[in-house]
Amino acid sequence: MRVLVNISYHGGGYLGFQIQNEGRTIQQQFEKILKRMHKRHVRIHPSSRTDRGVHAIEQYFHFDTPLNISEEKWQYAMNSALPHDIHVNDVTIISDDFHCRYDCVGKMYRYRTYHQDHINPFQYGLKTFVKEDLDLKAMQEAAKHFIGTHDFTGFCSQKTEVVSKERTIYRSEIIETEEGFDYVIAGSGFLYNMVRVIVAFLIEVGKGKRHPNDVNRLLELKDRNAVPHTAPPEGLYLEKIYLSDEALIQDYGEDIEIHYKKSTQNN
Amino acid sequence: MRVLVNISYHGGGYLGFQIQNEGRTIQQQFEKILKRMHKRHVRIHPSSRTDRGVHAIEQYFHFDTPLNISEEKWQYAMNSALPHDIHVNDVTIISDDFHCRYDCVGKMYRYRTYHQDHINPFQYGLKTFVKEDLDLKAMQEAAKHFIGTHDFTGFCSQKTEVVSKERTIYRSEIIETEEGFDYVIAGSGFLYNMVRVIVAFLIEVGKGKRHPNDVNRLLELKDRNAVPHTAPPEGLYLEKIYLSDEALIQDYGEDIEIHYKKSTQNN
Repeated sequence: MRVLVNISYHGGGYLGFQIQNEGRTIQQQFEKILKRMHKRHVRIHPSSRTDRGVHAIEQYFHFDTPLNISEEKWQYAMNSALPHDIHVNDVTIISDDFHCRYDCVGKMYRYRTYHQDHINPFQYGLKTFVKEDLDLKAMQEAAKHFIGTHDFTGFCSQKTEVVSKERTIYRSEIIETEEGFDYVIAGSGFLYNMVRVIVAFLIEVGKGKRHPNDVNRLLELKDRNAVPHTAPPEGLYLEKIYLSDEALIQDYGEDIEIHYKKSTQNN
Repeated sequence: MRVLVNISYHGGGYLGFQIQNEGRTIQQQFEKILKRMHKRHVRIHPSSRTDRGVHAIEQYFHFDTPLNISEEKWQYAMNSALPHDIHVNDVTIISDDFHCRYDCVGKMYRYRTYHQDHINPFQYGLKTFVKEDLDLKAMQEAAKHFIGTHDFTGFCSQKTEVVSKERTIYRSEIIETEEGFDYVIAGSGFLYNMVRVIVAFLIEVGKGKRHPNDVNRLLELKDRNAVPHTAPPEGLYLEKIYLSDEALIQDYGEDIEIHYKKSTQNN
């Protein structure tokens, strides 16, 4: 039986999603609980791997089990054993040919900031502090240039090891909030550090150090050294996972180009 | 020269205020910075010691220095070196006979909770989760019984080592919030775990397991075993420190009995 689990977590206390040799990770917390229930190791497969300190409002994983337990009881068993910074929102028994990673056709991220004259200790780990007055209009103009299909070699970590660095962005938007701004980006997939590199670039635009029109040139340049900064992880939230073309079309319209299909590589 | 420092901190990443043999504490963060500036150890003296995970919206400490640095520059130097979960709000050069601990005549604490059908990972470390529907009216009635001068032996940790366990409470109030309730308590001083024991007791009243009128009997009984619970630290905020009788009278009126004066023991 294949079990699909929808979770949220505060990433502040974890080294990221994926299991490490040492230290707490989200995967480790779940595999510990599943090991106790199965008396053997059970591997979980996430839709996305989040980095150290990155949060998830919606993340999925699946695992296979011989245990005959109802969806409600799976949810109850996991929530009872989890620490208070991870929560199981929903559990669904799904078909054996569904795969959280290969059936993920899109993701949406949100990056949260707050703008004050000094840091607020109670925003620690939840939003990124921005001291400067930023030109949000210029940032919004720059943000729009990321929409469409581009090679993001210049806007990801040089450690990225995937073959194709082409991704399709459906939404890229600066939203003014009471406390500062949020940046929302949705796309077919994201390269390592891609959202945080884009956010750091947009902040440079907001400071007047870059021009909104630089985006196309930098995308074509494909040189990470030309976009050297990475925004800190604590403001980043994985907000939505798209597990079907229909869900993507519902949010972004019928005209979108849907890029990643079953059994293609997807990060 | 004696320097008075007003700070805020998110306690989630610390073992408490006071320095420990191992692990991060608030005192250690400041003494590390002061050591770098003085090339020798400089001890800081706080108004209050907060426990592991407990926050401070307002906390004070003082230290003595031969360095001739302006108030603004002290603040800037410390904020530049501090992590983003501690902030120096203000620095004042004060008279050498002022002492943060002995001149502290009162404190106010706030305990924050949120009430939902399930935990919210993004409230983690900031508010305490309360699953049950609580009778806030009964809790408010119970809270009022703590106002006045009482022996709090029954409502503190048995590890408390002070001679007198008599304290005067000026305010004790349940406040309904959008998300749940806050409990605010102000008094001459607080014994070890006292606020968290009172909060745990008030939650029992809210569940109907205790009656508001039990307060007076339990205060007289002076038996901690009769009040066995302690609310978790993450909801607790040291909110205000009173460093003069005038400040106390301003908030609680001229009729209050001011208990603790210079060179008496005060926790």
